[in-house]
Amino acid sequence: MKIDLNKDVHASNNAKALEVHDFFNSKGIKIINLVGSPGSGKTTLLESMIKYHGSDDIGVIEGDLFGDLDHQRIEKLGVQSYQLNTEGACHLEASFLDEALNHFDYDKMKYMFIDNIGNLICIVSYYLGEDLRIIVSSTTEGNDKPYKYPKMFYTSDIVVLNKIDLLPYIDFDVKKFDKAIENFECQSIHVCAKTSENIDKLCEMIFNA
Amino acid sequence: MKIDLNKDVHASNNAKALEVHDFFNSKGIKIINLVGSPGSGKTTLLESMIKYHGSDDIGVIEGDLFGDLDHQRIEKLGVQSYQLNTEGACHLEASFLDEALNHFDYDKMKYMFIDNIGNLICIVSYYLGEDLRIIVSSTTEGNDKPYKYPKMFYTSDIVVLNKIDLLPYIDFDVKKFDKAIENFECQSIHVCAKTSENIDKLCEMIFNA
Repeated sequence: MKIDLNKDVHASNNAKALEVHDFFNSKGIKIINLVGSPGSGKTTLLESMIKYHGSDDIGVIEGDLFGDLDHQRIEKLGVQSYQLNTEGACHLEASFLDEALNHFDYDKMKYMFIDNIGNLICIVSYYLGEDLRIIVSSTTEGNDKPYKYPKMFYTSDIVVLNKIDLLPYIDFDVKKFDKAIENFECQSIHVCAKTSENIDKLCEMIFNA
Repeated sequence: MKIDLNKDVHASNNAKALEVHDFFNSKGIKIINLVGSPGSGKTTLLESMIKYHGSDDIGVIEGDLFGDLDHQRIEKLGVQSYQLNTEGACHLEASFLDEALNHFDYDKMKYMFIDNIGNLICIVSYYLGEDLRIIVSSTTEGNDKPYKYPKMFYTSDIVVLNKIDLLPYIDFDVKKFDKAIENFECQSIHVCAKTSENIDKLCEMIFNA
């Protein structure tokens, strides 16, 4: 008998992800899965959005291989957050979230962000129960990334092109990048998390949608 | 019976990798495995090194999920190159190299570069028979990367910090980055692949070692 391990793993993960989705949905909480390369600026984007939107109704689950550097950053902003470590594994699975779920006070919460592991490949197929998947891609990674890692882009609802403050100093063909995103039929926005450029517009897309 | 699939997969990959190593070693060819995040600048670094060193004795195996964008770039420099596509898989395995090995003319070749898939996690454990593993980490990814993805760094022989031309425009603590690398006991060099800064010194480390 040939067992399709991947298929089996994904079916089991999807079932668990739907449970996670129902858990948050029953509390009226929207789940947002933030994905992107290492260093694309996921955590800086979160910081910038929290500063603009406020910290009261937001929770954050931090995913990292090791350590709690990102958790420390988020906690400073007065946001409830919990650090998950995969101890070297390349992706979060829905079942990993159980550890975090009991940690939060959900009274005021309306939005739960999952700050996923830096990876454009393995996490594509691991649904975590999210209502919204947002990919953060930075200008410094190059305009070819949607062409080289298409699945991570076209499975996302919103593509955030980050670090547009660095455009004057690098070779980045914005039109070429945007063309790929158009073909994927994702929503798209250009921002700078560091300077907060267009963070108001991104918050409008996420919090008022 | 409980089967440790990972252990089994890695033992099988390591055995094949040693065959690949012997294949190149018998021809007097050094294998260099280039790893790093998506957009860290692996291919640009290769281009810069080829321009400095010359193209005659170099071969390149390009690893990507899809497409042949990097192969096209390398071929333009007159270097023998072959594109491997994993069709979505997150890492190259030693057995994948078979497809490429028959493609090259080895008469003048002294160095075979493997331009690996953009990933800081899964490829850590997949030895490809290389004599030298080089990680390319760019300043724009942030100085925390060696702390967050330690295994990819400490399994590398040389850490290349790329895009130092952008240091004036970003928040990057060079000392903090270097401190981590010192602890890993890797060789280390700061370069800019785009402007060729310190590419001569890196070539010295690779080609004259």
